[in-house]
Amino acid sequence: MTESFSTLRINADRMQDSFTQLALIGSTGDGGVNRTTFSEAHLAARKWFQAEIKNCGLEFRMDGAGNHSAFLASDSTDAPTLLLGSHLDSVPNGGRFDGALGVMAALEVLRTFKENRIKLKSNLEAIDFTDEEGTHLSLFGSSALAGHLHSEDLQNPYSGRENFTAGLARAGLTETGLLQAKRPKKKVAGYLEVHIEQGKSLERAGIDVGIVSAIVGYGSYRMSYVGRADHAGSTAMEDRLDAGQGVAAFILAARETVMRDFPSCVANVGKIEFAPGASNIVPARADFLLEFRSSDADQLSKLDVALVELAQQKAGQFGLALIMEPLGKHSPNLMSVEIQQMFQKACDGLGLSSRVLASGAIHDAQSLVDVCPIGMIFVPSVDGASHAPREFTKWDDCVNGANVLLQTVLKLAAE
Amino acid sequence: MTESFSTLRINADRMQDSFTQLALIGSTGDGGVNRTTFSEAHLAARKWFQAEIKNCGLEFRMDGAGNHSAFLASDSTDAPTLLLGSHLDSVPNGGRFDGALGVMAALEVLRTFKENRIKLKSNLEAIDFTDEEGTHLSLFGSSALAGHLHSEDLQNPYSGRENFTAGLARAGLTETGLLQAKRPKKKVAGYLEVHIEQGKSLERAGIDVGIVSAIVGYGSYRMSYVGRADHAGSTAMEDRLDAGQGVAAFILAARETVMRDFPSCVANVGKIEFAPGASNIVPARADFLLEFRSSDADQLSKLDVALVELAQQKAGQFGLALIMEPLGKHSPNLMSVEIQQMFQKACDGLGLSSRVLASGAIHDAQSLVDVCPIGMIFVPSVDGASHAPREFTKWDDCVNGANVLLQTVLKLAAE
Repeated sequence: MTESFSTLRINADRMQDSFTQLALIGSTGDGGVNRTTFSEAHLAARKWFQAEIKNCGLEFRMDGAGNHSAFLASDSTDAPTLLLGSHLDSVPNGGRFDGALGVMAALEVLRTFKENRIKLKSNLEAIDFTDEEGTHLSLFGSSALAGHLHSEDLQNPYSGRENFTAGLARAGLTETGLLQAKRPKKKVAGYLEVHIEQGKSLERAGIDVGIVSAIVGYGSYRMSYVGRADHAGSTAMEDRLDAGQGVAAFILAARETVMRDFPSCVANVGKIEFAPGASNIVPARADFLLEFRSSDADQLSKLDVALVELAQQKAGQFGLALIMEPLGKHSPNLMSVEIQQMFQKACDGLGLSSRVLASGAIHDAQSLVDVCPIGMIFVPSVDGASHAPREFTKWDDCVNGANVLLQTVLKLAAE
Repeated sequence: MTESFSTLRINADRMQDSFTQLALIGSTGDGGVNRTTFSEAHLAARKWFQAEIKNCGLEFRMDGAGNHSAFLASDSTDAPTLLLGSHLDSVPNGGRFDGALGVMAALEVLRTFKENRIKLKSNLEAIDFTDEEGTHLSLFGSSALAGHLHSEDLQNPYSGRENFTAGLARAGLTETGLLQAKRPKKKVAGYLEVHIEQGKSLERAGIDVGIVSAIVGYGSYRMSYVGRADHAGSTAMEDRLDAGQGVAAFILAARETVMRDFPSCVANVGKIEFAPGASNIVPARADFLLEFRSSDADQLSKLDVALVELAQQKAGQFGLALIMEPLGKHSPNLMSVEIQQMFQKACDGLGLSSRVLASGAIHDAQSLVDVCPIGMIFVPSVDGASHAPREFTKWDDCVNGANVLLQTVLKLAAE
């Protein structure tokens, strides 16, 4: 690549025009979008994307998993493809930036490459991955492309088989097609994604760009404290084996432990139930879901041990039994160090402040870690909001993200 | 009454024989009984009671609310009636002592009076009140007798209208009959009840008999902490408004406050729910039911204020909003001081240790506080168990309760 490209920038107004058109499709009327996968609004957004790709003079492609792409070919035969992208689906009543920004930034990078007639050593593909948010199957478009999707994965979709197969039919997809969407590793040069942070660390620190070092790993448990159901009127406080006391003590102490001893990690108790569940009966049983995340495999294991010990300690403190059922454990996914360094240089060249951080949320990028080098950047989320209509990122930050992507793609894919 | 009666005792073996026969009806096979009101087992128990009354040579009576009684008439015309009793219904899979002991003790007292041909200044009635446990309408037999039951109370039974009306039909009762079961105050001389403690204070202190000073009053609230639903992976711990932290802190602190500042009171959080209720979303809302009880009206009010302040304080501590909906508040019901003194003397005369205590559970006695003087005694519950098959009271303690009842009835009703 010639040094002259270091001053190249994406067309901020053009990208904003596309982004704004897209945000109207499935609009909730209060800044958000409702584009669950294969809903009418989601299919409309994909149709619009297909038309926009053609308007840009780019090639439209779709694979068996319904991943929609703009394609810009290298002149060299058998060149691998550098993927740039994110997703156009949303959670119910989600925000207009989550996913959409990454796809629009990718498309804008391809347009900028095309209009500047930049010679490519890799093909470029701006890809909208199917169902990142998991209306049916979390990350299924990127999993299918990576060859991680198997027929048994299709049997128990979150939405139920009937909704899933009806959705596939509406989208013109088949299960056979999904399972054949795998791309050969040698044809994939890498994957880069721009996304909003969905947290407030960048905003709080006044940093322009977050360079993702890892997508967090997580562990989760279904836990139950078991005490004794007693009459809540006639049983003295000191005679109770109250499962509610155990879980309350655990919820407070888990937060304190994470904040004190694992400051880069998080934990959550998001669901809880007392049995028998009557106002006048001391809870005999408290069932709850615990999950915790860390970008560091060693920290994740230590946090796991610490939380289990804490749960046991609270059981002992209140004379309760503890039942623990592990629900899953996934290691952190590391991003390419080389691409992180390229992002860093791109930020420096653009005069943007940056910091390395971990992604607490999952992203399509993690589907591809064993396929190709992966890079991901975050732009600030105002107030850390996400998955809600109030989700917002300043347009200048969106443009910054797209320009960092452009400069990095120049390093990776320009001849 | 002549002093000669001070050595009179109930027939312990005869009472045990009746008690044991009754415990077989609706037996759960592990020591408990399943006799929800108007169930087949409950109606069988009532049929058995009716036959047992006739076997004893006592008169059987039933009122419009289905209250079943053994009746022993005074010679004097227009004598009022001293009621002795409890209930034969149980909670689902309840114990064989709760209610049944009081009815069997009352019946045995009448038999003892009859066989000793003791002259009465009041009629004596051993009564089985309908639905003390509230399968359909809590305390409805005693409420009907006291004139507290109104047609609007019948519209929303716990069991639903259909089950309720079907149950009435099975029992040969009508709603009109229920509403006409009120007895004139001047015809009711008093009400005495023997019951198991359903707590462990007597057992722990090694006391034979508890003399009830009051049936506790209670307050209850539906409360909600409201924070913000954030992504539990990407939102740092310090950036969360976690409704679960608020309720956890409240549950712990409420117990501590009651034990430290209100040692004679109790409080319970028996039901809880987090919304949106997903393992990976910080709880935006925690809804829970709080109830608290005290036998002292002043303490009840102060505890109410303290718990509300505590709830507000925890909202402030975690940056949450608090929504409170009062669900009910009932003042404590005081037992007759004169009858308490008679119970005391009876215990002393029988060589039984006794202590005054409050009933944390509700009982039919409270329906009658504005109708006549009320007295209630407790006998020890092993391990404080109740409303479960493991509920148990030693037979000697049951006999003690019946003899205290006998001696007190001699003071109140013998000429």
